[in-house]
Amino acid sequence: MARRDETLRLGAFLYPGGHHVAAWRHPEAQADAGINAAHYRRLAQVAEAAKFDLVFLADGVSVRGDDLDALSRTATRYVGQFEPLTLLSHLSAATARIGLVATASTTYNDPYHVARKFASLDHLSDGRAGWNLVTSADAHEACNFGRESHLAHARRYARAEEFVDVVTGLWDTYEDDAFVRDKAGGVFFEPGKLHVLGHEGAHFSVRGPLNVPRPPQGHPVVVQAGSSEAGKALAARTAEVIFTAQVTLGEATAFYADVKGRLARHGRAPEDLKIMPGAMPFLGRTRAEAQGRYDALQDLVHPVVGRSLLERMLGVDLSGHPEDGPVPDVPETNGGRSRQELLVALARRENLTIRDLSLRVAGARGHWTLVGTAADVADALQERFEAYGADGFNIMPPVLPGGLDDVAALLIPELQRRGLFRTAYQGRTLREHLGLRRPPHRVRGSRPEGSRAAAG
Amino acid sequence: MARRDETLRLGAFLYPGGHHVAAWRHPEAQADAGINAAHYRRLAQVAEAAKFDLVFLADGVSVRGDDLDALSRTATRYVGQFEPLTLLSHLSAATARIGLVATASTTYNDPYHVARKFASLDHLSDGRAGWNLVTSADAHEACNFGRESHLAHARRYARAEEFVDVVTGLWDTYEDDAFVRDKAGGVFFEPGKLHVLGHEGAHFSVRGPLNVPRPPQGHPVVVQAGSSEAGKALAARTAEVIFTAQVTLGEATAFYADVKGRLARHGRAPEDLKIMPGAMPFLGRTRAEAQGRYDALQDLVHPVVGRSLLERMLGVDLSGHPEDGPVPDVPETNGGRSRQELLVALARRENLTIRDLSLRVAGARGHWTLVGTAADVADALQERFEAYGADGFNIMPPVLPGGLDDVAALLIPELQRRGLFRTAYQGRTLREHLGLRRPPHRVRGSRPEGSRAAAG
Repeated sequence: MARRDETLRLGAFLYPGGHHVAAWRHPEAQADAGINAAHYRRLAQVAEAAKFDLVFLADGVSVRGDDLDALSRTATRYVGQFEPLTLLSHLSAATARIGLVATASTTYNDPYHVARKFASLDHLSDGRAGWNLVTSADAHEACNFGRESHLAHARRYARAEEFVDVVTGLWDTYEDDAFVRDKAGGVFFEPGKLHVLGHEGAHFSVRGPLNVPRPPQGHPVVVQAGSSEAGKALAARTAEVIFTAQVTLGEATAFYADVKGRLARHGRAPEDLKIMPGAMPFLGRTRAEAQGRYDALQDLVHPVVGRSLLERMLGVDLSGHPEDGPVPDVPETNGGRSRQELLVALARRENLTIRDLSLRVAGARGHWTLVGTAADVADALQERFEAYGADGFNIMPPVLPGGLDDVAALLIPELQRRGLFRTAYQGRTLREHLGLRRPPHRVRGSRPEGSRAAAG
Repeated sequence: MARRDETLRLGAFLYPGGHHVAAWRHPEAQADAGINAAHYRRLAQVAEAAKFDLVFLADGVSVRGDDLDALSRTATRYVGQFEPLTLLSHLSAATARIGLVATASTTYNDPYHVARKFASLDHLSDGRAGWNLVTSADAHEACNFGRESHLAHARRYARAEEFVDVVTGLWDTYEDDAFVRDKAGGVFFEPGKLHVLGHEGAHFSVRGPLNVPRPPQGHPVVVQAGSSEAGKALAARTAEVIFTAQVTLGEATAFYADVKGRLARHGRAPEDLKIMPGAMPFLGRTRAEAQGRYDALQDLVHPVVGRSLLERMLGVDLSGHPEDGPVPDVPETNGGRSRQELLVALARRENLTIRDLSLRVAGARGHWTLVGTAADVADALQERFEAYGADGFNIMPPVLPGGLDDVAALLIPELQRRGLFRTAYQGRTLREHLGLRRPPHRVRGSRPEGSRAAAG
C-alpha cells in the first residue's frame, strides 16, 4: 500500500502503574504511581524526549465498582489517584513541548468551569492543552452528584452537544488581540473585542463572558472517545481527535471511513479530525521476551479482579455462568453500548470462554494488544496507518514506568527509521503537532452600543 | 505589650499586576501577569525564599461588572487571568515548601469536585494545599451558572455549611494507612479502611467514596474570608485560617476576640484558627520614597475606574451623587454586607467624599494600607499582632513583581531581626508552617459486612 504523505500522531496514555489490570503487582511497576508526582513528571519527560504528540489522562468522578474485594485488588478503577486537570497543570511546569490532554465529563460538570480550566491550562502550557470530552455512564458517578442513576444515553449526548458549543463559545469571549495593555492610555483591553456569549439552551443558560483571554491555540484541542452512533455524530461535528478502541484491521478501517465520511456535511475536511485508536504494546528484544512479558502480567491477574472487570465492561452479572462456559448475550442498556458489542463480537469470533475473555480484557480492557519485537509492532501500526485505519495511536503502556521506557527505547526509533514518526518537534503547540488548524474566532452573542452595556 | 510566644504567619496574596487597581499601568508592573506563568513561578519562588507560609489566590467565576468602559481599564476584576487551581498545581512543580491556597466557591461548585481537586493538589504538593472557601454574591456569577440572580445571603451560608462537611467527609474516605500496595498478596488497599460518606442533606446528596487517597495533611487547610455574622459562625465551626479586612486596630482586636471567643463552643482551642487580615504595604527606604510610591499609583487611577470600583464595593449606583459630596447610606442587600458597612463607617469617621473614598478603595480595596519604611510597617504589624488583633497577615503587594520584591528585601528581614518571623522553614506542610494540628480521621458512613457491599 502507498505511503501516506503525513506521519503518525502518537499519544502516551498514562494510567497509574500501567494499563494492564495487574500492572501495579509487577515488580517493575511504581505501585504508588497514582499519587506520585515525581513518577508522572518523569513519564511526561520521557514521552517528550521521545517526541510524542501528547500525554493523555482518562478520568472518572467516582470509585468505579461495588465489589470491594475486586476493587481493593486493583489500581485501575479510580480507587485513588490524582485528578487530571491538577496533574496536567503540574506537568505543564515540568515539560515544554508535549501536549497535555485531560478527560472531563460533560454530564457532571458546568461548561463555564470546564471552559475556564482548559483555557487556563492552555495559557499555563503555552498552547499545549486538550480536552477529552466524555459523557458519564456510571451509576457511581451519578450518586456523587445528587442523582440516583446516570442519564439515559440520548439525554447524555444531547447535553454533550450543547455543552461543547457553550465551551467553544466561551473560549471565543475575547478576540485574540483584545488585550492591548496600553499603560499610557489606560486601556487594558479593547472593549469592542469582548463578546458576551448569551447562551440560552435546553440544558444550559450561560451568559458569559469567560474571564480568561482567548487560549493560545484559539481553542484547546477537543478529543472524544465515543464510538456509538450518537458519539460518532457528536465527533463528526465537534471533535478534532478521536480516541477509539477498534481491535481488528477491518473494524478499524470501517470506523475510520465511517467517521471521516461524516465530516463533509459539517463543512469539515478529513484532516480536521485525527483518529487515534488505543494500542497496548508488549515489547521485547525477541518475540519470546515480549510473550514472556505478556504472560508474566497475565499470571498476576487475580481471578476476582478479572471476572469483576469483565462484568463491569459487559454490564452484566456473571455469577450464574461457569468460568469455562460461553459469554452470554448482553442486554441493551443505558451505558456505553458500543464497547460491549465489540467485546461480545470478539468472544464469538474467537470462541472465548468467560475466563478467556476476562483475561483478554484484563490485559488491555478491550483495546488492541500487540506482542512482539519493535519491528513486529511497527509493522502492525504501519499496516493500520497505511490502510487508513488510523491517523496515529494512543499508546497504552502495560506497565509504568518500564512500558513507556520500552516504547521510547525500542518502538519510537523503529518508527523514526521508517520515516513514520518525527525526530524533532516542528511546532510549538499541540495543534501544530497534530496538524490541526487554529480555529478562527467566531463572534458570538452581542454587545450593545454604549459603555454601560452587556459586558458581564 | 508582652511579646507573644509564637511568630507571625504571612501569606503572599498574589493578584495580576498587583493589588492596587491601577497597578498594571505602573512602569514596573508585569502588565500581562494574569496569563504569564513564568511571572507567577518567579513570584512563588520569591515568596518561598522569603519563608512566607503561603501564596494566596482570590477567585471569581465571572468578569465582575457591567461597566465596560471601567472594566476595560482594569486588570483586577477577573477580566482575564488564570484559574487558581490550575495555576497553583503548576506552581506546585516550581516550589517545594511554600503553602498554596486557592479560592473556590461553594455556591457554583459541586463538593465532590472541590474535595477531589484540593486533595489532588495536596498530593501533588506533598501537603501544601489550602482551600479558601467563599460564597458567591455576584449576579454575574449567577448568570454563568443558569441562575437569574445569586442566592440570598442566608441560603448561601446554609449551603456552605453543608458543603464544607461533605468536602471534609470525602477527604476522610480512606484511612491514612489504607493503601498497603502488597504486590505479593495482591492487596492494593485494605477494604476495611475505605469509608463511604453516604451524605443526604438539604442541599447535597453525595454517596462517595472519594477517589483520592487521604491527603498528606489529612485535610487541606480550610481558609475563609467572611466577616458577616453567618461568616463568623461558619468560620468558628470549620475554618482554620480567616483572611479578613479590618482596618483599624480597634476593629481588628474586636473581630479577633469575637471569633476566637466562638471556638470553645465547637470544642476548638484558640490556636486552631489563625486570623490573618489583609495588609497592603507601600514600602520605601525613606518615608518620602514610600509616599512617592503610593502617590504615583494613585495618580494612575482613571476616574471611571475609581468610581466604578466604589459603586461595586458599596453595591449602589452613585451616578446621581456629586464626586465631592458625601458617601450615601447603603441599603441592606443580598450581597456581602460586612465590607460595605466597614466602608461607610470609614467614610463617616474620616469625613470622606465620594472621590476620596473611591481613591481610598482603589488603593487597597478596603484593606489596611501601610505607607512607610520597613521599620514603620513592621511597627504597625507588630503592634496589631501583639495586641491580639491578628495572628499574621495576608500581604497584598500593591504592584507585582516589584512590591513583593520590596517586602522580601526590606520588610521580611526587619521582621526576622525582631524575632517575629522565621528565618527557615521548620515544617514541611502548610499545616506545620501555620502551627495547625493534623485532623484525625473521622470514620463516617458505614460499610456493611461482606465483599459485594457499599464501596461505591
